[in-house]
Amino acid sequence: MSHNSFGHMFRVTTWGESHGPAIGCVVDGCPPLVPLTEADIQGFMEKRKPGQSKYTTQRREPDEVKILSGVMIDEDGVQKTTGTPISLMVENTDQRSKDYSEIKDRFRPGHADFTYDAKYGIRDYRGGGRSSARETAMRVAAGAVARKVLQGVTIRGALVQVGPHKLDRGNWDWTEVNNNPFFCPDAAAAAQWAEYLDGVRKAGSSVGAVIEIVAEGVPAGWGAPIYGKLDTDLTAAMMSINAVKGVEVGNGFESATLTGEENADEIRVDDVGRPVFLTNNAGGVLGGISNGDPLVVRFAVKPTSSILTERKSITRQGEEVDVMTKGRHDPCVGIRAVPVGEAMMACVLADHFIRHRGQVG
Amino acid sequence: MSHNSFGHMFRVTTWGESHGPAIGCVVDGCPPLVPLTEADIQGFMEKRKPGQSKYTTQRREPDEVKILSGVMIDEDGVQKTTGTPISLMVENTDQRSKDYSEIKDRFRPGHADFTYDAKYGIRDYRGGGRSSARETAMRVAAGAVARKVLQGVTIRGALVQVGPHKLDRGNWDWTEVNNNPFFCPDAAAAAQWAEYLDGVRKAGSSVGAVIEIVAEGVPAGWGAPIYGKLDTDLTAAMMSINAVKGVEVGNGFESATLTGEENADEIRVDDVGRPVFLTNNAGGVLGGISNGDPLVVRFAVKPTSSILTERKSITRQGEEVDVMTKGRHDPCVGIRAVPVGEAMMACVLADHFIRHRGQVG
Amino acid sequence: MSHNSFGHMFRVTTWGESHGPAIGCVVDGCPPLVPLTEADIQGFMEKRKPGQSKYTTQRREPDEVKILSGVMIDEDGVQKTTGTPISLMVENTDQRSKDYSEIKDRFRPGHADFTYDAKYGIRDYRGGGRSSARETAMRVAAGAVARKVLQGVTIRGALVQVGPHKLDRGNWDWTEVNNNPFFCPDAAAAAQWAEYLDGVRKAGSSVGAVIEIVAEGVPAGWGAPIYGKLDTDLTAAMMSINAVKGVEVGNGFESATLTGEENADEIRVDDVGRPVFLTNNAGGVLGGISNGDPLVVRFAVKPTSSILTERKSITRQGEEVDVMTKGRHDPCVGIRAVPVGEAMMACVLADHFIRHRGQVG
Amino acid sequence: MSHNSFGHMFRVTTWGESHGPAIGCVVDGCPPLVPLTEADIQGFMEKRKPGQSKYTTQRREPDEVKILSGVMIDEDGVQKTTGTPISLMVENTDQRSKDYSEIKDRFRPGHADFTYDAKYGIRDYRGGGRSSARETAMRVAAGAVARKVLQGVTIRGALVQVGPHKLDRGNWDWTEVNNNPFFCPDAAAAAQWAEYLDGVRKAGSSVGAVIEIVAEGVPAGWGAPIYGKLDTDLTAAMMSINAVKGVEVGNGFESATLTGEENADEIRVDDVGRPVFLTNNAGGVLGGISNGDPLVVRFAVKPTSSILTERKSITRQGEEVDVMTKGRHDPCVGIRAVPVGEAMMACVLADHFIRHRGQVG
Repeated sequence: MSHNSFGHMFRVTTWGESHGPAIGCVVDGCPPLVPLTEADIQGFMEKRKPGQSKYTTQRREPDEVKILSGVMIDEDGVQKTTGTPISLMVENTDQRSKDYSEIKDRFRPGHADFTYDAKYGIRDYRGGGRSSARETAMRVAAGAVARKVLQGVTIRGALVQVGPHKLDRGNWDWTEVNNNPFFCPDAAAAAQWAEYLDGVRKAGSSVGAVIEIVAEGVPAGWGAPIYGKLDTDLTAAMMSINAVKGVEVGNGFESATLTGEENADEIRVDDVGRPVFLTNNAGGVLGGISNGDPLVVRFAVKPTSSILTERKSITRQGEEVDVMTKGRHDPCVGIRAVPVGEAMMACVLADHFIRHRGQVG
Repeated sequence: MSHNSFGHMFRVTTWGESHGPAIGCVVDGCPPLVPLTEADIQGFMEKRKPGQSKYTTQRREPDEVKILSGVMIDEDGVQKTTGTPISLMVENTDQRSKDYSEIKDRFRPGHADFTYDAKYGIRDYRGGGRSSARETAMRVAAGAVARKVLQGVTIRGALVQVGPHKLDRGNWDWTEVNNNPFFCPDAAAAAQWAEYLDGVRKAGSSVGAVIEIVAEGVPAGWGAPIYGKLDTDLTAAMMSINAVKGVEVGNGFESATLTGEENADEIRVDDVGRPVFLTNNAGGVLGGISNGDPLVVRFAVKPTSSILTERKSITRQGEEVDVMTKGRHDPCVGIRAVPVGEAMMACVLADHFIRHRGQVG
Repeated sequence: MSHNSFGHMFRVTTWGESHGPAIGCVVDGCPPLVPLTEADIQGFMEKRKPGQSKYTTQRREPDEVKILSGVMIDEDGVQKTTGTPISLMVENTDQRSKDYSEIKDRFRPGHADFTYDAKYGIRDYRGGGRSSARETAMRVAAGAVARKVLQGVTIRGALVQVGPHKLDRGNWDWTEVNNNPFFCPDAAAAAQWAEYLDGVRKAGSSVGAVIEIVAEGVPAGWGAPIYGKLDTDLTAAMMSINAVKGVEVGNGFESATLTGEENADEIRVDDVGRPVFLTNNAGGVLGGISNGDPLVVRFAVKPTSSILTERKSITRQGEEVDVMTKGRHDPCVGIRAVPVGEAMMACVLADHFIRHRGQVG
Repeated sequence: MSHNSFGHMFRVTTWGESHGPAIGCVVDGCPPLVPLTEADIQGFMEKRKPGQSKYTTQRREPDEVKILSGVMIDEDGVQKTTGTPISLMVENTDQRSKDYSEIKDRFRPGHADFTYDAKYGIRDYRGGGRSSARETAMRVAAGAVARKVLQGVTIRGALVQVGPHKLDRGNWDWTEVNNNPFFCPDAAAAAQWAEYLDGVRKAGSSVGAVIEIVAEGVPAGWGAPIYGKLDTDLTAAMMSINAVKGVEVGNGFESATLTGEENADEIRVDDVGRPVFLTNNAGGVLGGISNGDPLVVRFAVKPTSSILTERKSITRQGEEVDVMTKGRHDPCVGIRAVPVGEAMMACVLADHFIRHRGQVG
């Protein structure tokens, strides 16, 4: 086991702290002969990159990915994976560690400061160290590799709730997602959220969000009972993202309120005799195995804990103090969780694709 | 990796089908010198056992656990674990496989029939085979062993929602949980639920539920960043239970609607200088590591898919048919998920206890 | 991780003590649709079974394997694997625990008594408990399942050295292996060994041995760099067998004495243009990946530690004592290691077959 | 699982090719508060570094290690581990990829060229790519971290055989090991080996070797039955080193020739009542668990396959050719395997230290 790895056959190990010289990851188990360049990855890095709008942290990082191993230019001049581990690295450039010196001995409420200290007796306080959302940059990089493995699978994500403002699903338009800084699939809602989040930002406050990730094109049969379930792995992947407090698949918590008649997805065959589910309450998975329908996962992100209001806390030495986080932060950390959620979905699917192919042939 | 194992240092592997000769599990990594008898386990088996009220399946299984390995009576006559794998087995006695013969070639909507067939090209249709909730009996058995490892930790669960009926948390009384067939911590709500579920049962229908599991006495420091988070493992453990569609920790999905000021738990010190969190919105975990507060996890269980109403489906051969499940089933499978959720919590905590002790000493 | 499991995608977990009610294993990850009956396994159990000649322990166990899960009779009446975990169990019948009561508090030199006690503070002394070679019965059972997965691969083993008596490899005849109680591929040598071992047995002594396992039909490409090497896994598998003290592949330790010119296997093409290695010094593996030639692994087994001569030892309480093991034992435990080594080879190959198919397709 | 990771709780993942921009590793699971600087690691890198004598490859690499994550300077100014993953990197500087262009389409006999190509259909031919011994630099780096974790344990290695020349163990003097370019613990033998290897080098030939690694100070109790045995893990660790063809523990293959009376280590108590083994035939491990005596492991390294004599081979296209490796190479690659073997011993022990502490407390 490894505390900093996820996946089994497509396995990602990340390393690095928010204010260290660099962050990186090793992608092990990627099949050979997959075309892969830095440009393939960079596009996804841009989507998650901080400092792109006033609604996310103002830290400015180029987030330029380097591939240090695992690829080779073949005879046709195409760079491809070789089956060996792919090492990816991003140098940190805009660390302002001074911003954090005053919280060196103080536990910021809602942050991992207290628990890291309780566990390890030492803690990299600069920018949250290892517990910073900066680590998710490498998830996005690994996810970009995973997407290349998953030919025929489309993975997309959207913000579906900001604070109390839920999306009207009837207005869902995937083409809108990249037209606003919120990955919101509804232009009108995006405008409303902009106004709402301006208020949150100006108040030095923060707010939570809900993200939905959808994968289309996954054939029936991926996943495995009992502790290798596709939805278990997807749920764990999302839950491992910073600040996530809940995950659901398909109807999720709403399914608790339904009857068996309402909830089970009926089956028919289409014109060419292929099975068709008439609804997708299951979110594309039954008994831990994909059923061919879109995989639908949602997760809730808590409000950023770093806010400009003083909160009660204590020092490492046990003195009571009031803590206000200065530094640079996201009024809604959930926004940048969209590309991260997509990446986690991609990594889990690449893993299960390889596992399935191995076990069933 | 193993599709039928969970945990790393305290590792449980289950095996067996609903209508096979027996089901069982191997608990590997249990520390030595832990007092353990079959009676320690049997009490928890009784709690989950089918056929105990009209609200759960009428299958009648004694669910008598045998310990086949891993224990030894010491010089004082106390049976203790030896550090070697503990094999637990329960013989199946009340299989009525005939009940299922007519669904041999039909996929029951909402069940894993379709996906197992899509994956493996063969499927044990008798009682759902491996996908049956019968497997959870062994989780409960393993959980009983885990509890013995976790001295000082109390793990309790309750049903907090049945269909649309949510509990009023102000009436929560743990002592009520074993006074009704629903593990409901509110006598008045239990009475109401009884009436509601009678209706569901008579209609041959089913309904979903939400379960809450709480662990008290876990010290600060268990868990680990980034992919070994305590809440990730707890979430995955719950999600792996049959019919679970959503999991949340602490405030969970509600945290999406809160501001940073509302959500972060403030810290003070108590009379003897120990840190005290003034609230527990986090559900006892920050940055993937326990903070000393009670761990609080909730999960949603979908309505039982086996109902007495005909639903549209297809056969293995692709013909359209209507399927009605006869057999014996739970009107609310969520009820029996309470002891299962407790067991999963216990297993995850035993695992993290050992991992923490190893890494930090 | 698990201390009692091996393999990754074809994963075997064993349990049980020498004098407990039963021993067993769970085979997880076996592909579906593999024909499998108890008879397929029983033949291999017979080969390893104790009490078959005067050269092995006189314990008499029927070693009758039961399949408790993971198989299903299909429409054609053929019992096949379903992709779910296969639970195998053998009941112990001929435990004579009294034989061991006097070593309850004494550490037998050469045995694991001292170290189990040092580690766990408790130890099942009856017949060696978990450290007994009885555990290897389940390896053989799992190996029989693995063989069914490995269509086209032939795995055979032979004893190539008993005490100082090495086989003359020029006389190697695989058909002789089952004609003598030593799995010796040379009838003349077998006769010589019989005489030699009669002397060892009558003296209450014991002697070591070397076993060679060969797998033919493995295609080029199985295995993986760097820590997933096929030869690493084969070596570890053999080293995990009781009493094994050394393992080598191909030329093994002899390769230390050779020059590069002598050792590297040259390559040509055959009539139909396929690559042919002119020699097999490598033992069928290069860079951790199979090259299509026979896989050749040898391992050394130390002499049985249980002998009828008194040896210096101590008690659990630290008193100096002389220990002589009564009970029933093997004059040459290496003999019965032949089918065990074959089984380990089969399990490792089944694992790598699945891993390779997953990663490369 | 991961093909490029080893260890469970102290887990090392390496990446990088011989002629890529850099090589590196991630050490995950290192306990916190362990003092660690680049200088702690660099000393061991120097020992393995190429180009230090005419007996090893003339490639000149500074092998300067950078720590990119996982450490923090504490209040006392001491840099310590924080419990988060430690990323180590070494930039490659002296790649002369042109040397290898002519073997782009040819399989060098004895190398992994053929098998990588058979497996992946693509291969980084420059300097052997991933299969190069260059990867072992990162094992040495990780081993240096492991040594810091293992307070009280001394790990040393020596070359005990070069080609046909075995060491006379009676002359063993650890202080000589660093006085000659062979890690030979006998000055007289070293002089003899120098002469012998000069001849091998001038002939453009190569020769094999045997290395012995000894760990002193390991307490009784580390390791675990059955598939988590300390000697199994040590054996696998050594076998995973490039060009290793055999591994043995304690008496190893010689134990096959001994009787039970000769081989079992007798036990007495010392002046203060502690157990003492009178011999160490076992090599410090019984039943997979350390017994408190020095751990003794030996492994055989085959002769370097790159030699200046033409050998028969084929091209990727299946044409028969003669291949002579130019480039820069080791006449005896076994020499540099000494620090690598030490590092592997250190990593395995750090892993088992943490596992033991976790399971037994």
